[in-house]
Amino acid sequence: MKPRLAITMGDPAGIGPEIVVKALAQERVYEQCRPLVVGDEGVLRRACRAAGVQPKQLEVYDIGLPGLEQVRYGEVSALAGEAAFRSVRTAIELAMRGEVDGTVTAPLNKEAIHLAGHPFDGHTEIYAHYTGSEKYAMLLADEFLRVIHVSTHVSLRQACDRVKRERIIDVTRLMVDACRQFGIEEPRIGIAGLNPHAGENGLFGHEEQQEIIPAVSELQAMGYRVTGPVPPDTLFAKARCGQFDGCVAMYHDQGHIPFKVVGFQWDSLTGRMKSVQGVNITLGLPIIRVSVDHGTAFDIAGQGIASADALLLSIDYAARMAARRG
Amino acid sequence: MKPRLAITMGDPAGIGPEIVVKALAQERVYEQCRPLVVGDEGVLRRACRAAGVQPKQLEVYDIGLPGLEQVRYGEVSALAGEAAFRSVRTAIELAMRGEVDGTVTAPLNKEAIHLAGHPFDGHTEIYAHYTGSEKYAMLLADEFLRVIHVSTHVSLRQACDRVKRERIIDVTRLMVDACRQFGIEEPRIGIAGLNPHAGENGLFGHEEQQEIIPAVSELQAMGYRVTGPVPPDTLFAKARCGQFDGCVAMYHDQGHIPFKVVGFQWDSLTGRMKSVQGVNITLGLPIIRVSVDHGTAFDIAGQGIASADALLLSIDYAARMAARRG
Repeated sequence: MKPRLAITMGDPAGIGPEIVVKALAQERVYEQCRPLVVGDEGVLRRACRAAGVQPKQLEVYDIGLPGLEQVRYGEVSALAGEAAFRSVRTAIELAMRGEVDGTVTAPLNKEAIHLAGHPFDGHTEIYAHYTGSEKYAMLLADEFLRVIHVSTHVSLRQACDRVKRERIIDVTRLMVDACRQFGIEEPRIGIAGLNPHAGENGLFGHEEQQEIIPAVSELQAMGYRVTGPVPPDTLFAKARCGQFDGCVAMYHDQGHIPFKVVGFQWDSLTGRMKSVQGVNITLGLPIIRVSVDHGTAFDIAGQGIASADALLLSIDYAARMAARRG
Repeated sequence: MKPRLAITMGDPAGIGPEIVVKALAQERVYEQCRPLVVGDEGVLRRACRAAGVQPKQLEVYDIGLPGLEQVRYGEVSALAGEAAFRSVRTAIELAMRGEVDGTVTAPLNKEAIHLAGHPFDGHTEIYAHYTGSEKYAMLLADEFLRVIHVSTHVSLRQACDRVKRERIIDVTRLMVDACRQFGIEEPRIGIAGLNPHAGENGLFGHEEQQEIIPAVSELQAMGYRVTGPVPPDTLFAKARCGQFDGCVAMYHDQGHIPFKVVGFQWDSLTGRMKSVQGVNITLGLPIIRVSVDHGTAFDIAGQGIASADALLLSIDYAARMAARRG
């Protein structure tokens, strides 16, 4: 049987409900999973009108919050924040009880969540709290590139300090586990250097010799198919062309730059984002969680022009992971 | 009259001669310039046979070095190094004397140059020496992206130290000058942050507040169309989609990663590079110098499979710059 996936509608003032109904209007979604939208029927009907689509099936798990049709597009509000929060919490509960096989999330607005009285900075923190998880990591993925990060939200100087043998080994193993969940049994992992040309034998920095090379050797001795340190400016280009199944980035932008330069498209006339390919997978949770890697896009909400590409890819990843977990 | 461009043949053991004759077999080259190949007639005839092409015109400025047909593909040698070196020095002399309007270089091998007794690490150093230039900077460009770097070959920790207001202003002005030479009169320049999310108001690092923001303000006060600091993971994606004509990268990989992930293509079966889009322009010289941004590719030399894409783009950039300089 196809996996059952809970899909949250996101903040009703943003593009979340619109991309959900657009995705569910695609036939191929039903070949991959049985979707259950967690949210509000009125909001989703409004999104169908805005998007000009009508999904063949639209099964909704109601969050029981009245008055959501009143939420205005593009406005931060406590009511919209409460709706987004309840959708996520409900999806987590459904997954923890085994009523769904995985969860997929549409974007929420941090400020609205705070206005609604919930002290979380984003999806990841909500998931960690309600599943009782302490060790987790963020993986960015599109169709060609999968990247995990040694560090994320710290200064570049601090990121240099965080390049440590043990941490590199930990995140590489998380990446290998994730690849297996995607159906890649013996993943080839490329580990980036920190410095230009991966340090060119100590000429430009010593982190490669002191931390990264020992980590690579240890991982190889454990039987993992890892290569590195690869010069940062060729690793992601090579991975994109199929030489690696996953990449380990040493810091936030090393992994985010190649990812976004390939996956994000802006319209050159309006300056608006027109397509985003990219999903964000939280590893280390007891349940499956895949999210789009873009925001609520309040500036274009309700106009029917948002792209559902990233949500379709999120559903695809979640369905593959759920099928493997069985 | 169309500009006269000297095109060096590069190291005869590499793919240089092959990509030169392949490029000159394209009709559009003659619409842009009058090409003069600096090298050896026998080597170029051999390259035509290997590539299976015959340029309509092939005007050669001979470097006067006998025996070059004996050079074996894929082998580092003093003879091949001498040939590559003389081609470059001759092209520089032709440009300094005004006999050509610009120069375009095919790849050379550093080791071969050293074997031939010339103590230079690459084209840039040869150009700096023979043109008597002290201040110069490297600009990477393809059809969509143009990037200049605040620092290049230093460790990432040192790169953080090099992020200084004055240097940012200098390289931004070089980029603006370059864009004008490409025919973009009022270029829009995006200046990257150093830290993730451009520091998020000091949360992840202070270089934005202390150095980058003051540089941006000063440049704006001078009348330049600059924006920044832009989060590093969106700047290059936006530039690629047409929002900026040029980018200022704070360190080597920040600029090289987006450039290569878009422009470099490897064959996923053989692991060989199959296409490279990208040119390297040396700014700050008295003459025009544009180069392909790839190497001699000794592993595929003589097989007729090298791509001339980057050389064609180099010729295009050099011709545009020469036409503007008049």
